[in-house]
Amino acid sequence: MPAVDVAGEFETIRRLFAPLAHPEWGRGLKDDVAVVPSKPGHDLVLTKDAIVEGVHFLPTDRLDTVAKKLLRVNLSDMAAKGAEAFGYLLACHWSERCGWPERMTFVDGLRVDQKAFGVALLGGDTVVTPGPASFSMTLLGWTPKGRTVARAGARVGDLVFVTGFIGDGWLGLQGAQDKLSLEPDRIAALVEQYRTPAPRVEFAPTIRDFASASIDVSDGLIADLGHMAEASGVRMEIDLELTPRSAAGQAWFDGRVDEQAALEKLVTGGDDYEIAFTARAADEAVLRREAEKRHLRLSRIGRVTAGQGVVARFAGQPVQIDRPGFTHG
Amino acid sequence: MPAVDVAGEFETIRRLFAPLAHPEWGRGLKDDVAVVPSKPGHDLVLTKDAIVEGVHFLPTDRLDTVAKKLLRVNLSDMAAKGAEAFGYLLACHWSERCGWPERMTFVDGLRVDQKAFGVALLGGDTVVTPGPASFSMTLLGWTPKGRTVARAGARVGDLVFVTGFIGDGWLGLQGAQDKLSLEPDRIAALVEQYRTPAPRVEFAPTIRDFASASIDVSDGLIADLGHMAEASGVRMEIDLELTPRSAAGQAWFDGRVDEQAALEKLVTGGDDYEIAFTARAADEAVLRREAEKRHLRLSRIGRVTAGQGVVARFAGQPVQIDRPGFTHG
Repeated sequence: MPAVDVAGEFETIRRLFAPLAHPEWGRGLKDDVAVVPSKPGHDLVLTKDAIVEGVHFLPTDRLDTVAKKLLRVNLSDMAAKGAEAFGYLLACHWSERCGWPERMTFVDGLRVDQKAFGVALLGGDTVVTPGPASFSMTLLGWTPKGRTVARAGARVGDLVFVTGFIGDGWLGLQGAQDKLSLEPDRIAALVEQYRTPAPRVEFAPTIRDFASASIDVSDGLIADLGHMAEASGVRMEIDLELTPRSAAGQAWFDGRVDEQAALEKLVTGGDDYEIAFTARAADEAVLRREAEKRHLRLSRIGRVTAGQGVVARFAGQPVQIDRPGFTHG
Repeated sequence: MPAVDVAGEFETIRRLFAPLAHPEWGRGLKDDVAVVPSKPGHDLVLTKDAIVEGVHFLPTDRLDTVAKKLLRVNLSDMAAKGAEAFGYLLACHWSERCGWPERMTFVDGLRVDQKAFGVALLGGDTVVTPGPASFSMTLLGWTPKGRTVARAGARVGDLVFVTGFIGDGWLGLQGAQDKLSLEPDRIAALVEQYRTPAPRVEFAPTIRDFASASIDVSDGLIADLGHMAEASGVRMEIDLELTPRSAAGQAWFDGRVDEQAALEKLVTGGDDYEIAFTARAADEAVLRREAEKRHLRLSRIGRVTAGQGVVARFAGQPVQIDRPGFTHG
């Protein structure tokens, strides 16, 4: 059914998106397809994430940060698999608030980030919706043949690691909704982390070389460890106190009375976009060196045992976590 | 921002989508990515289309036909490029009307069609939206290296062809909205064509071998010929009377007083999902044989000349068409 659109599909593609196109494989966005040559000795890796206004981003969020977040959550999936992204396809479901200025803002965000992360637009579709705006992206990457890291593969005796900090995404969402009582610059740092998380792309080669299993932390640390445990047929045991906190996260934590409840919030909140992975104990030293080279925090938070599920301990005692993570759909 | 969902993301993936997964490359939908081996001697072809409730399909449409239409419009893009599809990624933005029964209906449609068309699910995302439902798909296919047909490539002197019938999609939309006065079985045939168009996948190898340029007809025949003319740097001249009509389309046409106005409706309505292409005059006979072998109607509707744009003639006279096609966003 035709829809009249203030900006127009072709103008939107030609003026906004064509400048982002992959110079060779995107065909100037003037065709219905992208054509990517096969690359001998490699596997093509694909991932797709969708985000919806009012669900994954706030109606008040600027669209440049929305575009950046969309790209970054996909890059996070790719990095966690040890893969290196090269291009993406994009579907924009524009809402009524998305006139030319808003669409240009969206593209501004993409332009900055695709340069920063070395990817290019390959194609996609642009449509209008009478409802809230939503966007989806298919991201493509390569790994050397057979080297893509899976959720399955964790072995009993492996250690459990996580990059960066856990909980800032959830705290940032609280901050963006004015639910956080902290110093303004702490809140600003957390909100920025929520709006534009930092995918750990620089750690992808290390993950590929050393991780026995891995996942990006998007649903919540406990939930995502659960996915990895299930796929690997093992149990993950972690200590909540070892969960890494940023300076702002620590400032929030220091103001809590119930430490256990606070930790549970951080490990179930989601939107972290860190990499949780397992590796042999013998590789811990080299993993730490690789992380340090990249100025990346790396924390050992537990170990892999026989069994199933996730056991989280606080003060040495197993904790019952009712709702390990959130789902989006 | 977390959203509570009646069906749940993981249950939706595990129970509904996992059975559709590509046995080898889809990883059982238990990972964040699909991994597709590179295929030496071939190019990877990608296309992505999105559809929105109230824009591209009707709120009253059953979701199995919506799923089929989503797959088929993508298959149509792929076929028009001479490529053969093997897999897809899917983003479902479920609305409130999409409980388990509706989601299962959606998957039923996919299951039937992915078997019919020889493709398999590689991955994707499932989210909920407070607005109307929408869906997007990234379809992947192969062509022999360097053989993907482009919109560019039409040469002066080439003939212009189109497969199947033009106008049934638009007529079917009118029928679905009770705006059509015709015999009930005619209306039913048109509505079915609108809801589940037939992508011309069987003609893809012929397109690859003989078309100098091609495009799938989704915006409207005139508009899509215009895209091809622009990309090729030529003019397309067609005779409106040569536009192929189905039996139901002809029945509607026979009831019109103003033949020219009726033809203009058919060539601008869109949603046809036929292939419009150009080829050398010397290849017309073999093209006809290839089409006949597949019981596919093939119509020569015009020729390529020097210049730009599309010239449509009625009774030998050029016709001014104000609005050559519709856009969706």
